[in-house]
Amino acid sequence: MKTETLFGIHPVSEGLRAARRTFSEIYLAKTSARLEKVIALAESRGVPVRKVSPSQLEAMSGTGMHQGIGAKVSRYPLADFSEITAAPKGTGSPPFLLLLDNVVDSRNLGAMIRTALCTGIDGVIIPKDRSAPPTPVVSAASAGALEHIRLVQVTNLVSTIKELRQQGIWIAGTDRDAPQSLFDSDLSDPLAIVIGGEEKGMRPLVRKQCDFLMSVPQEGPVTSLNASVAGAVVMYETLRQRRYIQ
Amino acid sequence: MKTETLFGIHPVSEGLRAARRTFSEIYLAKTSARLEKVIALAESRGVPVRKVSPSQLEAMSGTGMHQGIGAKVSRYPLADFSEITAAPKGTGSPPFLLLLDNVVDSRNLGAMIRTALCTGIDGVIIPKDRSAPPTPVVSAASAGALEHIRLVQVTNLVSTIKELRQQGIWIAGTDRDAPQSLFDSDLSDPLAIVIGGEEKGMRPLVRKQCDFLMSVPQEGPVTSLNASVAGAVVMYETLRQRRYIQ
Repeated sequence: MKTETLFGIHPVSEGLRAARRTFSEIYLAKTSARLEKVIALAESRGVPVRKVSPSQLEAMSGTGMHQGIGAKVSRYPLADFSEITAAPKGTGSPPFLLLLDNVVDSRNLGAMIRTALCTGIDGVIIPKDRSAPPTPVVSAASAGALEHIRLVQVTNLVSTIKELRQQGIWIAGTDRDAPQSLFDSDLSDPLAIVIGGEEKGMRPLVRKQCDFLMSVPQEGPVTSLNASVAGAVVMYETLRQRRYIQ
Repeated sequence: MKTETLFGIHPVSEGLRAARRTFSEIYLAKTSARLEKVIALAESRGVPVRKVSPSQLEAMSGTGMHQGIGAKVSRYPLADFSEITAAPKGTGSPPFLLLLDNVVDSRNLGAMIRTALCTGIDGVIIPKDRSAPPTPVVSAASAGALEHIRLVQVTNLVSTIKELRQQGIWIAGTDRDAPQSLFDSDLSDPLAIVIGGEEKGMRPLVRKQCDFLMSVPQEGPVTSLNASVAGAVVMYETLRQRRYIQ
């Protein structure tokens, strides 16, 4: 079994809750009320807990960002493309997917996955070559949301978009220069939102595949919303149109 | 003159553009097309540019987060309370203020100020004791938005809220447990939004002063939206109701 190591309270506790990875061992370097809850959960699942020193955990993590806990786990459980399109969650809500192109920063990827989970997105699709991979760092940056989200890695985002369109899903690209505002866009139909990375945005050949482009309006002298904030505004506007308009 | 030192391209360039601080000197440790633009701006303002080594700049900043440029500047120019309430910007839009309580993390403060500037907020109010101060780190975290925003520090947030109410401004608190959704809230009147920090939220005595409380709806198994993302969703919903509903 190929393994990796999660660090931090949220990645470990949400990993246990989601129950999608195999946990072989928990590493514990301090005690606290919050950590005790995680340990109780681990023990109820029969996962052995090993006490280590803070410096050992620091050496394992390569950073000080471990909050006193780590876990040796099986590799990240990617979802299948068919899983996120064929059978969306039972809410009766139309499909709602997120496609990320050129999001190469692990923290931005984690932040967007955190918001995606909070807005009830059915699945997140990333390309193999133009994205940060779903590492333990992404799990930490997502506050453990990565452990629950359905994440699909595809070889060719353009073919994926074509396939989604054939299934009746609209492809909405976000672009800061698009003349159409997010708030003038109809997001209530089956939808895949495409968001580009902070530095480069989405690739032109991906942009060309979008059914329409929309921008998050910006006022004032600095026109540079943070990419994961812009993504959150788009995801929440979609949620609003689906749940709060009759 | 009391001084501080800004580091990074955005803090320095936006500081120059905003022209609210006195620049005594620019420190330059490398060359690039982006840096040359900033230097041209500095020279057009008559600010002397001194070449330093990357290690000198690193020692000055205490971190590696300087992008090759620093600037010795006068201290952050706080705004007066009267400035942000008496004369809002000339858009004809009702007053729109942001009050932050217990936002003690500089990066979260910077992130919220960045979004506040992008949504056309008239001013941000922070308490002296329960907030990160407007340091160069906040300027960097805001991508330089701090240099443009009108920021007021007050001694007593509760008295400030009472004063705002007397001026006909509604006080809307955000609380993840509030039964009323953000999307069921009317945000088109003169408004001050109160947002609490990531860890503690707003203080109970501040919450008690709010005219109403609203929550950002969350779905799925992890109910923990990032604080600055939740803030962004609230600010953008306010913008939407004011600009996109006739």
